[in-house]
Amino acid sequence: MKTLVIISHPDIINSSSQQFLMHACPVEDDVTIHHLEGTYPDGKIDIAKEHALLRQHDRIIFQFPFYWYSSPAMLKQWQDDVLTDGFAMGKNGDVLNGKEFGLIFVVGIREQEYQAGGREQFSISELMRPFQAMAHKTGMIYMKPLPIYQFGYMTDEEKLDLIIQYHQMLKAEKNLTLLAKEKWVLDQLRKTDKNTLQPKDVHIVDHAIERIEENRETMDELKIVLDEMY
Amino acid sequence: MKTLVIISHPDIINSSSQQFLMHACPVEDDVTIHHLEGTYPDGKIDIAKEHALLRQHDRIIFQFPFYWYSSPAMLKQWQDDVLTDGFAMGKNGDVLNGKEFGLIFVVGIREQEYQAGGREQFSISELMRPFQAMAHKTGMIYMKPLPIYQFGYMTDEEKLDLIIQYHQMLKAEKNLTLLAKEKWVLDQLRKTDKNTLQPKDVHIVDHAIERIEENRETMDELKIVLDEMY
Repeated sequence: MKTLVIISHPDIINSSSQQFLMHACPVEDDVTIHHLEGTYPDGKIDIAKEHALLRQHDRIIFQFPFYWYSSPAMLKQWQDDVLTDGFAMGKNGDVLNGKEFGLIFVVGIREQEYQAGGREQFSISELMRPFQAMAHKTGMIYMKPLPIYQFGYMTDEEKLDLIIQYHQMLKAEKNLTLLAKEKWVLDQLRKTDKNTLQPKDVHIVDHAIERIEENRETMDELKIVLDEMY
Repeated sequence: MKTLVIISHPDIINSSSQQFLMHACPVEDDVTIHHLEGTYPDGKIDIAKEHALLRQHDRIIFQFPFYWYSSPAMLKQWQDDVLTDGFAMGKNGDVLNGKEFGLIFVVGIREQEYQAGGREQFSISELMRPFQAMAHKTGMIYMKPLPIYQFGYMTDEEKLDLIIQYHQMLKAEKNLTLLAKEKWVLDQLRKTDKNTLQPKDVHIVDHAIERIEENRETMDELKIVLDEMY
């Protein structure tokens, strides 16, 4: 599966959250990072190039700061210019059909304000309807979004957790079951280059793999018992 | 009451619906028409000028074609540039507080597709949440929007009706009661310059005024009877 991350941010160099995500991004052949304002400083979008990029990838991600309950203007321009009739919709416009579509966005306000009675009144799901409608119109599968609330106040532990969520959004199969999440974590642990680790950290990695495998065996046994009961 | 109509359309000359609205627009001192792409062809918005315009008006209207369930990118750029902290929100950012905010937008798809189970899945109210949230954040009063569905298929009669709705959106007090609507229509009829009309049309105008006044009298009498009954 190949993933295209379309980033829109007018000042990405000075954005600590975007810089963090850039460094957290898996450096692999099957992930393409594409910053719109950097690629098109004059605002003129190369539509043929964008169409080619979309064709080459299976999962399309929009990554941006949440400005006035939506994306920056450049990403809206991209939608208006690139998602043309005959390509993304309308007659023969089925290029995006069946691809996955995800949203990653950085929000300055606390999560609990986004509900009826909260300071922002509406939920993130409601505010994202225009993007959900776009996914629906183009036949893309709408993934569970990854909103990042108040990045500046995150603890180191929360940031580590964010890296995992970010990797999963970009690379793991969508709507992970517990079993798939386990498998994903095991894969990541096994891929770790132990030569880059301190001896005590090698031990931690080995221990984590063992514990996950043991837990899984216990759960499999429980499942057999339950199946026999019914 | 002074009304500012902020229009965003990248090709307004070739838009039959926008041209229609331009000609339908009341030519009066207290309505300002402001086309963003025409004013700023290089896309660079004069923030001080926009702030002055907003201060001078009591009702702010966004008028645009519905592109990907939102406005064209230029209007998003306007939001991001102009609605600054300290002006439209945040500490001392109360300039828009108490003003009225309205949306007029032209939609290519039939109205009934905008509901659960329809081709577009979501209602117009849901898709407009980001604008409603903006009005909420800036303290503006969200008016009932005026979506214009499938302008190209409208009959002449529907277009005449649209002109009335358009004038009311720009000039009449919001959420008109029947009484206020009557008064508004009577005012418009009385303002008509009879020298510009054919004799038979003068008669029609006089007759319409008479009928509306008669209806109102009948309704007032009914109200007295009802009040006495309870």
